[in-house]
Amino acid sequence: MNKNLVGVDIGGTTIKIGLFKNEGEVIDKWEIPTDKTSKGDQIPIDIWKSIEQKMIDYDLDISTIAGIGVGAPGFIDAKKGVILIGVNIGWNDFELGKKLSDLSSLPVYMDNDANVAAIGENWRGSGDLVDNLIVVTLGTGVGGGIIANGKIVSGSNGTAGEIGHITVEKEGGAPCNCGRSGCLETVTSATGIARQALEAVNEGKDTKLAERYKMKNKLTAKDVFDLANEGDLVSQEIVNHVTDVLGYSIASVATVINPSKIIIGGGVSKAGENLLRPLRRAFEQYALPRIIEGSEFEVATLGNDAGIYGGAYLVKQNIG
Amino acid sequence: MNKNLVGVDIGGTTIKIGLFKNEGEVIDKWEIPTDKTSKGDQIPIDIWKSIEQKMIDYDLDISTIAGIGVGAPGFIDAKKGVILIGVNIGWNDFELGKKLSDLSSLPVYMDNDANVAAIGENWRGSGDLVDNLIVVTLGTGVGGGIIANGKIVSGSNGTAGEIGHITVEKEGGAPCNCGRSGCLETVTSATGIARQALEAVNEGKDTKLAERYKMKNKLTAKDVFDLANEGDLVSQEIVNHVTDVLGYSIASVATVINPSKIIIGGGVSKAGENLLRPLRRAFEQYALPRIIEGSEFEVATLGNDAGIYGGAYLVKQNIG
Repeated sequence: MNKNLVGVDIGGTTIKIGLFKNEGEVIDKWEIPTDKTSKGDQIPIDIWKSIEQKMIDYDLDISTIAGIGVGAPGFIDAKKGVILIGVNIGWNDFELGKKLSDLSSLPVYMDNDANVAAIGENWRGSGDLVDNLIVVTLGTGVGGGIIANGKIVSGSNGTAGEIGHITVEKEGGAPCNCGRSGCLETVTSATGIARQALEAVNEGKDTKLAERYKMKNKLTAKDVFDLANEGDLVSQEIVNHVTDVLGYSIASVATVINPSKIIIGGGVSKAGENLLRPLRRAFEQYALPRIIEGSEFEVATLGNDAGIYGGAYLVKQNIG
Repeated sequence: MNKNLVGVDIGGTTIKIGLFKNEGEVIDKWEIPTDKTSKGDQIPIDIWKSIEQKMIDYDLDISTIAGIGVGAPGFIDAKKGVILIGVNIGWNDFELGKKLSDLSSLPVYMDNDANVAAIGENWRGSGDLVDNLIVVTLGTGVGGGIIANGKIVSGSNGTAGEIGHITVEKEGGAPCNCGRSGCLETVTSATGIARQALEAVNEGKDTKLAERYKMKNKLTAKDVFDLANEGDLVSQEIVNHVTDVLGYSIASVATVINPSKIIIGGGVSKAGENLLRPLRRAFEQYALPRIIEGSEFEVATLGNDAGIYGGAYLVKQNIG
C-alpha cells in the first residue's frame, strides 16, 4: 500500500512518536510528556492530538497513514489491544488499542515495549529482518524480546520474553524488582554490575574500583568495563561472572529459539567487544554446536528509537 | 475443504502412518519398516506405496487427501522440506518433501519429529489447540517441542526446542549423546534417572534400589518412582533432584515462551502425579508469578501416536 506508518513508544516519563515512510525512512520523530494523572486516561488523547498536529505541520492527510503501532510498558494482550497491567502508569485492563483506534479511525497494533523494540531492531537495526531473533537489553533492568517465525512471541498472558527474570542463582541471589531473588537482571543489568562493583569495594578488595569510588562517590557498569580493560583483576572477575551468567542464560534461550541473530542492547552494550568477546566465549561453552553455528551476536544500533521503528513495523507487518 | 489428512512419523525402525478425517478421526493407522539401506533413498517410495495401497483398501480416491504431513528425526528445513541431517537414517540434505510430493502430486509439509508430535498433542491430545505450548518428552533422551503463536518453532537451522540440551550442570555433568556434558537429558531422561539409581547402589547407599537391582540386575526410572512412593529416601532424593532440575529448566523456557500448557510425555511421564507434584513445586520456585498463573501442567495422552496426529495437523493448519 506504501502508506506512511506511525510508531509510538510509551515510557514512564515521555512518549516517543515517529512518522515514517513505508520503507522506514523517518519523516519526523518527536516526544511528548507522559501524563500519568487520572490513571493514564489522557494518554491516548495526547498521542492522537500530537499526531494530528504533526500531520497538519507536514500538510499530510490522515488518509496517508496506514495505521499506528504502539509499544507500551507492562503486560499486554496484543490480540485485543489491552494493557492488562501497566505498572509504571497505573493501567489495569486499559483498552489503549480501542481508544486510540476510535479517536483516529485508524487500525492500531500494539505489544509490550521490549517486544516492539525487538522488531524495530530487526527491521531497521542490526536484525536484517531475520525470522528468529533474541534481543536482550541490558539497562537499569534486563529486558528481552523474542521473534519466532517472523512474529513477536507475546505468550499466553503477555509475559513471554522476560529473559531478565530467568533464575540464575537458585539460592542466595540478590533481591529483584519482581519480588523474587536471583533473577538474571540482578547480575547482568547496569544496576546489578554496579552493585557487584560496590560490594567488591566494601569487601576491601584490592581494586582500582576503590579509587574510582572515592573520586566519584558512585560506580557504574561502565567503570567496571573500563577498569577491566585497563587490567584491574577484580573488574575482570566481575565482567567474567556477568558474561558467564548472561552467556549461559542466552544459550538456554537459544536452545529453545535457535535464533539467527542475538542482539544486545541497552547502556551496557556500549562496552561493545569488551562485552561481546567474553559473552560469545561463555555462550559457546553452554550451547549446542548447531545453535552456535546458526547464530551471531550483534550490538543494537537503534538505541532509544528502536521502539518507534518497531511500532511502525507492527503496522507494516499487519497491513503492508 | 474437509478432505482427509495423512500423517507420517518416520522413526529409526518403523514408519507410522495415519489416515485421518479432517477433524482428526482415525480412518486407519499402520506401520511399515524403515528401510535404511542406500541412505534411506527408498523411504519416500515406501511411504507413498503404502498410502496408495491403503487408499485402494478403503476404496478412496487420492483426490480425497488434502496433503501429507511428515515428522522426521534430525534437523529439518521445514520451509524447503529438506532433512538437513538425519543421523539415525543417514540422510544429508535429503529432499524428502519434494520427493514425496513428486510421487504423490500432493502437498507435503514436514518438521522435526518432536515438533510434529507437539502439535499432534496440541490438536488431539492434552493441548486444546492453545497458541503457546511447551512439550517435553522424557524417554531414552529428552525431546522438546515448542509452539508459539500457534506455529511450531523450528528455528534458523531446525535446532529449536532442543530442551534436552539445555546445560544444567556447568561443570562435571554426565556425558551426553550430543558430545557435550551436563545437558538436561543426562539428568532427567529415563536413562539419566536409571543411571543415578545405579550410582546410588554402587556407592553403597542404604536403599531399596539395591535389593531391586539384585533381583532384576537392572534399574529403571519406574523403579525409582515406585520406591520413592514406597518411602525409600534415596529414591525420593533422586526424584527431588530430577524434578528440581527439570522444573528449573522448564521455568527458564516458560519465561521465554509464556505457555498456557506444559505437556510432559514419554515413558517417565507414566509416573503421573508422582512426577507432576514435585515438578510443579520446583517450577513454581523458579518462575515468575504471571508465568505460573498463565500455565498448567498436563501429561501427554497420545503416546506414540502424537507424531501421526501432528503430521495430519500440519496439513490441516496449512491448507485446511
